[in-house]
Amino acid sequence: MTLPTRSYAAQSATTPLAPFQFERRDPRSDDVVIDILYCGVCHSDIHQARNEWGGSVFPMVPGHEIVGRVSAVGKDVTQFKVGDTVGVGCLVDSCQHCASCNAGLEQYCEEGGTWTYNAKDRRDGTATQGGYSERIVVSDKFVVSISEKLDLKAAAPLLCAGITTWSPLRHWNVGKGSKVAVIGLGGLGHMGLKFAKAMGADVTLFTRSPGKEEEARRLGADHVVLSTDEKQMAAVARQFEFILDTVPNPHDLNPYLNTLALNGTLCLVGQLQPLDPPVQAASVVLGRRSIAGSAIGGIAETQEMLDFCAEHNIVSDIEVINMQDINAAYERVVKSDVRYRFVIDMASL
Amino acid sequence: MTLPTRSYAAQSATTPLAPFQFERRDPRSDDVVIDILYCGVCHSDIHQARNEWGGSVFPMVPGHEIVGRVSAVGKDVTQFKVGDTVGVGCLVDSCQHCASCNAGLEQYCEEGGTWTYNAKDRRDGTATQGGYSERIVVSDKFVVSISEKLDLKAAAPLLCAGITTWSPLRHWNVGKGSKVAVIGLGGLGHMGLKFAKAMGADVTLFTRSPGKEEEARRLGADHVVLSTDEKQMAAVARQFEFILDTVPNPHDLNPYLNTLALNGTLCLVGQLQPLDPPVQAASVVLGRRSIAGSAIGGIAETQEMLDFCAEHNIVSDIEVINMQDINAAYERVVKSDVRYRFVIDMASL
Repeated sequence: MTLPTRSYAAQSATTPLAPFQFERRDPRSDDVVIDILYCGVCHSDIHQARNEWGGSVFPMVPGHEIVGRVSAVGKDVTQFKVGDTVGVGCLVDSCQHCASCNAGLEQYCEEGGTWTYNAKDRRDGTATQGGYSERIVVSDKFVVSISEKLDLKAAAPLLCAGITTWSPLRHWNVGKGSKVAVIGLGGLGHMGLKFAKAMGADVTLFTRSPGKEEEARRLGADHVVLSTDEKQMAAVARQFEFILDTVPNPHDLNPYLNTLALNGTLCLVGQLQPLDPPVQAASVVLGRRSIAGSAIGGIAETQEMLDFCAEHNIVSDIEVINMQDINAAYERVVKSDVRYRFVIDMASL
Repeated sequence: MTLPTRSYAAQSATTPLAPFQFERRDPRSDDVVIDILYCGVCHSDIHQARNEWGGSVFPMVPGHEIVGRVSAVGKDVTQFKVGDTVGVGCLVDSCQHCASCNAGLEQYCEEGGTWTYNAKDRRDGTATQGGYSERIVVSDKFVVSISEKLDLKAAAPLLCAGITTWSPLRHWNVGKGSKVAVIGLGGLGHMGLKFAKAMGADVTLFTRSPGKEEEARRLGADHVVLSTDEKQMAAVARQFEFILDTVPNPHDLNPYLNTLALNGTLCLVGQLQPLDPPVQAASVVLGRRSIAGSAIGGIAETQEMLDFCAEHNIVSDIEVINMQDINAAYERVVKSDVRYRFVIDMASL
């Protein structure tokens, strides 16, 4: 028996999101049914709703920063029970048998993970639909626990913006005393500052806009460097062990590479486009530096992050909106006019 | 009392190398005087003799793959004695107090190391002159021991081509069972194959030229992939933990990046130019891959490599030439017409 579900969907790449009703699947034995409380608004929701990456399938219900409460569980589900507060991020399934999945890194599934929306369920071939909806049905392996200690609405962006910055900081062993820089102060960047600081690092924010010092320090930055100021950039040459680059579009990496210490790594988490202008190989070779990239995170590390957040009381800085405000919110996201993430209060639906 | 020294030098960027006599410095207390037996011919000798990198200082005696015999030592030298077979590579000095130097990574000296030629001695400001000469005077800290068990003429290229490939293979922990690929089969590439194989890796050669299979296998390759063949490239997608890219000029990294496994690294050792065509960030981000670079090696690791070579009887494959043949040899190097390194027999001088 499928579950009639209200939502907001894009019917095409050029029409605004609007009310839409569809059926969630009859829960399988391993499924968790979640009543959605809050859903964050990620820039990638817009890219996909507008088919900016190509291949979008409509109607599309975006949303992959989902926080909700369990309303039912399949008969084989042991880890979750009705009433639990839980989250769902960018993935709802993966092959579960490749080397990446076996390592708990489902985001790098060699057969391709199943995205929370704009994808096909790998068991029944139906379209996956995301969190701008009243409920979602997800295999228990892709559901994470969220402590009720956290502000649940502000926890929603942890499921994408949070894990996208957490995973590389952990993978590259950021910890007490690490010299870390974050490029960009948006949804990802502000989480990068919070996490790096909570991990004990000495944290620098690179920004192109003056006047962000106070805000950056509030979020965890120890230092702020105006990346358009050559003198400030020269003063931090060879300083950083790790740079988290959250900029969502092509930009010149070369000035930042020169601020990496020997063996340092600049990790891209915000862009998928060609690196143009070209990277100077000399900067990489003569400093044994690395340019790396990282995509969201696996389920186990997402849980690890959420537990860390509960312990350190870390959530995102958000602006809560009603479901009806989504199209205006999209316009503001495109203009980077949000501090730092919109979250839809699903009660408004 | 300075030492009159015969050599071959470039008098300008546009004149052929020709006989030249100059004075080596009066040995200091920490100096080792070395009668040069053999000197390898590196492509960078040509770049600098022809001022292709800019800033060349003439007259210039190239050569930084130097093997010779100690003929005298300063009073404070304890590690070397007259008669020892020794080597000198790309560096003859460094600041000796920065973090890189303290880590034994003088090639990344933060104040800039002193190159063996086309540089200024950091103590007296005189021009450094390289190994196309009958002798050299070098601080003992930048002299390495070479076992007489090795074919000394074939050991000369170890001082640059050897260490340039050894250092990254070690740094990225290549060992038994590692899946490693080498791009390019030249002076660097053929050493990459030998070292990776001797370290126990499963070794693949990427080449653009068909017909190199037999030769590549002789040098240590377990597999050969024609990089111009899309089918062969697709067959090795996501295969390699480490790719050593020895290509000396700009080339498209993207097809190779796709052959890196999750967490894999492609390391540039042959080029310093912009990465054009641009690298696709998607390939890096969606596979947590890294593009890195590495420059020659430090003195301690050069000694480690030479000891490994003595133990495993590893040397370069070379063509011996007389000093008088150097200009013709340069033409052949430019055309990649050498298997795999020219070495000057300095007795011919």
